[in-house]
Amino acid sequence: MPSESELAAHYRAARGTVRQAIAVLVAEGLVGSRQGARRIVLGTTRSQSFAELHSFAQWARANGYRFGGQVISQRRRAARGVESARLSCPAVLEVMRVRTLEGEPVLLERTVYADWIAPAVEALPGDCESVTQALFDSVGLIFAYGEHLIDAVAAGAQDSRLLTVRRGSPLLRQRRITTTNEGRPVEWSDDRYRAGSVAFSIRNSIGANPLGRQLAF
Amino acid sequence: MPSESELAAHYRAARGTVRQAIAVLVAEGLVGSRQGARRIVLGTTRSQSFAELHSFAQWARANGYRFGGQVISQRRRAARGVESARLSCPAVLEVMRVRTLEGEPVLLERTVYADWIAPAVEALPGDCESVTQALFDSVGLIFAYGEHLIDAVAAGAQDSRLLTVRRGSPLLRQRRITTTNEGRPVEWSDDRYRAGSVAFSIRNSIGANPLGRQLAF
Repeated sequence: MPSESELAAHYRAARGTVRQAIAVLVAEGLVGSRQGARRIVLGTTRSQSFAELHSFAQWARANGYRFGGQVISQRRRAARGVESARLSCPAVLEVMRVRTLEGEPVLLERTVYADWIAPAVEALPGDCESVTQALFDSVGLIFAYGEHLIDAVAAGAQDSRLLTVRRGSPLLRQRRITTTNEGRPVEWSDDRYRAGSVAFSIRNSIGANPLGRQLAF
Repeated sequence: MPSESELAAHYRAARGTVRQAIAVLVAEGLVGSRQGARRIVLGTTRSQSFAELHSFAQWARANGYRFGGQVISQRRRAARGVESARLSCPAVLEVMRVRTLEGEPVLLERTVYADWIAPAVEALPGDCESVTQALFDSVGLIFAYGEHLIDAVAAGAQDSRLLTVRRGSPLLRQRRITTTNEGRPVEWSDDRYRAGSVAFSIRNSIGANPLGRQLAF
C-alpha cells in the first residue's frame, strides 16, 4: 500500500490520523506488518470485485468467457418455512435459471426474491445476461452484503436433467442470502455448479477470517 | 460497535482520529453505515477464529463435537510438479489423515509439508488430536495466512474406502496453501469432506470481498 505520507497527502489527513487508521487495519489483519517502507494489503482478493462474485455474468464477462442464461420457471407464491423470516415478507417470487459457460450448462440457480423486488425481476427478459446489472439499471438495486454456505451435494433428478450430468454426480452448492446496503434482504438462492466447472477461491489470515465451518444441514 | 466517544476514550485517541479510522473500515466494507448512534460490524465472522478455520480439531472442540484423527500413511519424498514452487523446497513430507466427527469419518486430508517442518510433523503421534496445536506447542509454528480453493469432486477409490461412501459420491474439496506470518509456505493440502458433514460459511460485502470464483482445474 502507499506510504503513510502518500496516504496523508491523498486523504488530506494528519500523519497521526493515517497511522491510527493503519493500526486498525493491521489489527483487523487486512494489512501486514511493515516490510521496509511499505506495508502489504493482505485481506482482500483484489482481482475480484463483489459484483463479480455476486453476478455469474459479471464474473464470466470480466474473464472473457462466453456465457448465457435462461429462465426455466418463474412464479409468485406464498413464502414457505424459513423463507418469510429470511426475506421478511409473506410472499415471494421463485425463479429457476440455468447459466451456461462456453456453451455448456454449468450452474442451476433456484432463487427466491422478496416481494418488493418481484415486479422488477418479472420485467426482465428470460435470457437476461446479467440480472444484477439489469436490476441496477432498472430500479437502482445494489446487492451489498452476502452470507454464503458452501457444500457438496449429489445431483437430483431436476439437477441432472438441467445440468446434463448423471444423477448422483457431485455438485458444488452455494446457498446465499443477499441484502441491500441497509440490510434489507433481497433474495435467497440455492445455486448448484457442475463439478469441474467453477471453484471458489478464498484468502484469509489469522487476523481477518471470513471463512468458517459449520455442520451441513 | 462502540460509539465514537467510547472508542476515543478506550484508545486514548482524538474523536477526529477515531472518525477517520471508522471511515477506513466503512470504505473497506467491514463496518456498516450509521444506524442511529451505532454502527454495525459487518465484515468478520466473529464466531470463528482462524485457528478454528485452519484446524478441524479446534473447530470441532469449540463446538463441542466429539472428534478424532488417525494418520493412514506418512513418507518423505521429492517434491513433484508444482509442489517445489508452491512450498519453496525440493523435498516434502506427504501425510494422509482421516478425521472423525461424532465417531464417523468425515474428512480425508492429503497434506504435503515443506521439508523444514517435516521433523516436527514426524514427531507427532499418529492419533494426534490437533496438529495445529501440537506444532505450536513443539516448535512455535503459527499458521498465519491461507489461500483456499473450494469445489466439489466425486469420491475416488481411496476416498470411498476411507470415508466409507460410495465411489462417485459427492465430496466437498478444499485445497489450501498455508504460510507463516512471514509468508513462508508450510503446507499444501487437499482436504475432502463427506457430503452432508461440514459446510463452509462465508460473509462478504461490496467493499470487502474475500470470496472469488475461478475455473475449476
